Amino acid sequence: MSVKTINVNQDILGANDILAESMKSQFQSSKVYVINLMSGPGAGKTSTVIRIIEALGNKYKIGVIEGDIASDVDARKIQEKGVDVVQINTNGACHLDANMIMSACKTLGIEGKDLIIIENVGNLVCPAEFNLGENIKLMILSVPEGHDKPLKYPLMFTEANALVINKIDLSPFTDFNMDEVKRVVMAMNPAIEIFPVSAKTGHGLDSFINWLEKKIQDNR
Amino acid sequence: MSVKTINVNQDILGANDILAESMKSQFQSSKVYVINLMSGPGAGKTSTVIRIIEALGNKYKIGVIEGDIASDVDARKIQEKGVDVVQINTNGACHLDANMIMSACKTLGIEGKDLIIIENVGNLVCPAEFNLGENIKLMILSVPEGHDKPLKYPLMFTEANALVINKIDLSPFTDFNMDEVKRVVMAMNPAIEIFPVSAKTGHGLDSFINWLEKKIQDNR
Repeated sequence: MSVKTINVNQDILGANDILAESMKSQFQSSKVYVINLMSGPGAGKTSTVIRIIEALGNKYKIGVIEGDIASDVDARKIQEKGVDVVQINTNGACHLDANMIMSACKTLGIEGKDLIIIENVGNLVCPAEFNLGENIKLMILSVPEGHDKPLKYPLMFTEANALVINKIDLSPFTDFNMDEVKRVVMAMNPAIEIFPVSAKTGHGLDSFINWLEKKIQDNR
Repeated sequence: MSVKTINVNQDILGANDILAESMKSQFQSSKVYVINLMSGPGAGKTSTVIRIIEALGNKYKIGVIEGDIASDVDARKIQEKGVDVVQINTNGACHLDANMIMSACKTLGIEGKDLIIIENVGNLVCPAEFNLGENIKLMILSVPEGHDKPLKYPLMFTEANALVINKIDLSPFTDFNMDEVKRVVMAMNPAIEIFPVSAKTGHGLDSFINWLEKKIQDNR
């Protein structure tokens, strides 16, 4: 008699994928473009969201879902920019899942929005495993984290559709090797788009914002 | 009739605690001082380990356990410093657990060592939940990550016995507020020791190394 085994992890991911597909259909029928924004702690997710709002908030209707283990620090920063924002506190969970997004979207409202940015929990590991029904996975690596991160956190760099390399204003004070990180990431993920920027100074943002605006327009 | 419920997460943590207690006994009977070193990605765990080896490697027998999802980049850096090192690749898992440490210690060897440093997976969330039998949990926050991290990742800052605030050489180029981070962390965890350092320039390291050496000596 053979033993029947349940792989709990695969089961969780399978259930998540079904909910994510359902969210994807809702996003598509509402013609809202959805970004799943991921990075390690303090790489500049919220600063990047604020830059996107400043650049595109007058032309497009934007909503933001803020994922954090605790606190509403980031949600309050976003709210000051005058866009709709919902805070998810995961109470210890290390990533967002599709079920949380389903709840958050009921509060946020999808209809009439052009862009929803989901700011995931700051973590280079777990969020990469969970689809949220997004159009793209956008990840941020910041210069002070170092150019060896793609080798150490391969799933995130393989899953991402686009990579923002933030805090290039700190490059002169670190040994960050931009050519090396581009070479390694492109070898792992040839289709990825890479944008070196400084969310602080604004350097490099034009090219990223233009690329993002085209995605929003093409989705309408 | 009442329904019997198994909380899978508590069950995992309970099993881990039993193994961690067993490791703790082994560490105590061998008089080896054990550090569980945790931080987000790229905060400077490996640089700090190398500074410890450079300062104390001639006086004390040091062993290092390197935890990474993938790659042996860090283990090779440590090996060049001439200390025993074992690499654990978690293959996707977001933290080390006591069972992994049990295996690694069989390869590394505990007997005769004064200090074992366990470099956990770069993640401010999950590693904080898993005891490894260590004497202290040492965490690193780096200046470019920002002073708002304690509010967002409270468990790690509450569990840590000591906090190294690394990359203070980058402070002039960021809005990092050292007083604010100290105030918030001390409110959450009044017993914590805090050491602002630059593993790059060496600034502030003396005080941290002296504190650590006293811990090793008191443990003998």
